[in-house]
Amino acid sequence: MIGTLENRGEEMRLRNIPNAEQIIKEFDHYAEALTENKGNWSSKFEKEQPLYVEFGGGKGGFAIGMADMYKDVNFISVDAKTEVLLKACEKAEKAEVNNVRFTCLNVLNARDYFNEGEIDRIYLNFSDPWPKKRHYKRRLTYRGFLDIYKDLLKPGGEIHFKTDNRSLFEFTLNEFAEIGVKMKNISLDLHSQEDLVNVMTEYEAKFSKRGFPIFRLEANIDNLR
Amino acid sequence: MIGTLENRGEEMRLRNIPNAEQIIKEFDHYAEALTENKGNWSSKFEKEQPLYVEFGGGKGGFAIGMADMYKDVNFISVDAKTEVLLKACEKAEKAEVNNVRFTCLNVLNARDYFNEGEIDRIYLNFSDPWPKKRHYKRRLTYRGFLDIYKDLLKPGGEIHFKTDNRSLFEFTLNEFAEIGVKMKNISLDLHSQEDLVNVMTEYEAKFSKRGFPIFRLEANIDNLR
Repeated sequence: MIGTLENRGEEMRLRNIPNAEQIIKEFDHYAEALTENKGNWSSKFEKEQPLYVEFGGGKGGFAIGMADMYKDVNFISVDAKTEVLLKACEKAEKAEVNNVRFTCLNVLNARDYFNEGEIDRIYLNFSDPWPKKRHYKRRLTYRGFLDIYKDLLKPGGEIHFKTDNRSLFEFTLNEFAEIGVKMKNISLDLHSQEDLVNVMTEYEAKFSKRGFPIFRLEANIDNLR
Repeated sequence: MIGTLENRGEEMRLRNIPNAEQIIKEFDHYAEALTENKGNWSSKFEKEQPLYVEFGGGKGGFAIGMADMYKDVNFISVDAKTEVLLKACEKAEKAEVNNVRFTCLNVLNARDYFNEGEIDRIYLNFSDPWPKKRHYKRRLTYRGFLDIYKDLLKPGGEIHFKTDNRSLFEFTLNEFAEIGVKMKNISLDLHSQEDLVNVMTEYEAKFSKRGFPIFRLEANIDNLR
């Protein structure tokens, strides 16, 4: 057992795991974010098929669930923290899904690790809301990040975003409306939808159970202003 | 005392008021929706100044409050029910505001009563959500109504919409996004805003007090698809 979970108030956090960086490299589901992978991510998978990337994927529940449901898609779940990716790799191994990989990088540098148009879809799930006003540029739906996503996404590619954070969703709606993002399937209470096909993140499962609404939207950014 | 209020579950309803149509015409604040008014609405007011129209204004609390706050604007509050307009006229008389008028018409026929570009801003407040899916064309933010608003509004004119109904707001966001409405100042919890300047409708005051969030947005429809 590598690393343990402890319950610290609202969130399950991972204790600092010694040697996490060394250990994780032994997992088949781990792919180092080397610049050589740029343009070659499909070689890290068994099949060449569309590539969906989750930025800020944490412990990987969403990406693994999606990979299990959509075998004709390759998934990469990105996080900046090695410790959570280690948990994700363990989980993927148990789930026996082969079309998912985990990699450690900062979204700000994503252009160094993915080719232009290499990604078919981007998922942003329960991203850090950065609630302080002066931190708005750190929110993953801030226009500065959209410029990055636009380079990485194929034309026609979409961003699928969900959050339980009302303020982050409100910020996102305004930001997207202002810079000409084309939005669709906007939901202000995702779990109230009939016939919903929705893979939940660890965080989502916990918060929706408490009755908080989940907000969601899909966006195309081909025509960013 | 003309007509009485009775508390029937959630809503305050007006009993059918006999002769309401005759009585209301005696009020200075009432303006008959005659086709002769088309293009001449400013003659119904003391001053020629921008014209803001509320569709579905009910008992007039919002329009009267706004008229009191913004003396350099003329307000018309429209409703399809004479009985509620009668209450609105009584209220306006008590409040001694002269830049507000009430008129009875169905929004579907609004083009017969307003010139193209005669209106500077449209308010939609707590419009009937028409919750059944098959009734979506009756919602005042349905694209069919937007075509009407576009004719009535001056270029650059805005629609200001607020509601406590999550489903109606969700419908509106999707509808507006799909047909190229330019949205701004989207709020998912209006009353949580700092430095808020907001005139409440009767309905809003009641519902926000119970802790329900109020949703709001502003829209420009110059470039409808």
